Amino acid sequence: MQTALDVETRALLAKLLRSERVGALGTLRDGAPLVSMVPFLAEEDFSAFWLHVSRLAWHTQDMLREPRVALSIAQTDDRRTDPYALARVAIRADAAQLPGDSEHAGRLKRAWLARFGQSHIHFELADFSFWRLAPRDARFVAGLGRIHNLSADAVRAAARGPERP
Amino acid sequence: MQTALDVETRALLAKLLRSERVGALGTLRDGAPLVSMVPFLAEEDFSAFWLHVSRLAWHTQDMLREPRVALSIAQTDDRRTDPYALARVAIRADAAQLPGDSEHAGRLKRAWLARFGQSHIHFELADFSFWRLAPRDARFVAGLGRIHNLSADAVRAAARGPERP
Repeated sequence: MQTALDVETRALLAKLLRSERVGALGTLRDGAPLVSMVPFLAEEDFSAFWLHVSRLAWHTQDMLREPRVALSIAQTDDRRTDPYALARVAIRADAAQLPGDSEHAGRLKRAWLARFGQSHIHFELADFSFWRLAPRDARFVAGLGRIHNLSADAVRAAARGPERP
Repeated sequence: MQTALDVETRALLAKLLRSERVGALGTLRDGAPLVSMVPFLAEEDFSAFWLHVSRLAWHTQDMLREPRVALSIAQTDDRRTDPYALARVAIRADAAQLPGDSEHAGRLKRAWLARFGQSHIHFELADFSFWRLAPRDARFVAGLGRIHNLSADAVRAAARGPERP
């Protein structure tokens, strides 16, 4: 069952998606799951999550074959006694490569470098490109037992803040 | 191609597997990947990685149907400029539930509580049980471009320290 989030929970989700920088990408490889750490950037309105990956990487080869992927974003472990209380969201998404010469790619590159300064080296490598992950749905665990199944619309609603629910 | 690790790289892998507390579990759901944050505990000799999960959780239902899973363990993001330099390992494993009344389960419970003190609440819930993840292979990225494909044996070798390679 999918639910709408209250103001406080929307703010928690927005904070999680904007403050964390690395996620875990699940792809399909030989019919079984593979999970890889990936830096990511959330689109302002949460309509997409961007990756910048090498076509030499296993997960990129996987996405070329099977666009259905998952991205887990978890609150950084602050060494609290019970890690099950950490906030996390599992997004199921469709992945598509962004053409390198698009206007969008230029804008993204600036946003990416603003977040990951040192990573300009990756833009000098021909095998790196942006991939767009468009959410199909999400499962947000705001803390112990606080589980919310969300539509892609509900994820986008979290980007709009308290004034515009 | 699978490689043997040098002493320094084995120590890096052992440190990663012992010091991190939460990983990202990849399971298969409706033919597509799902990724969930999970606390984990490495067996002393790295022959297994233990989870303590609820049978109500999606990932547990997935593992009951399809034992092939993946566990990604990444160095906690320390906000360095290039997150691609973080160490991480993607383990592909077979999952099996541990019978709750086994002697092993008692020993594991003590080890689990020593690591995750507050989580004793989960042991009072009937739906939680231990699952054993036995590695099939692993992909260890020790840093930018330092990629090692490892057999399950090579993962275990990292547990033995520098004296016994």
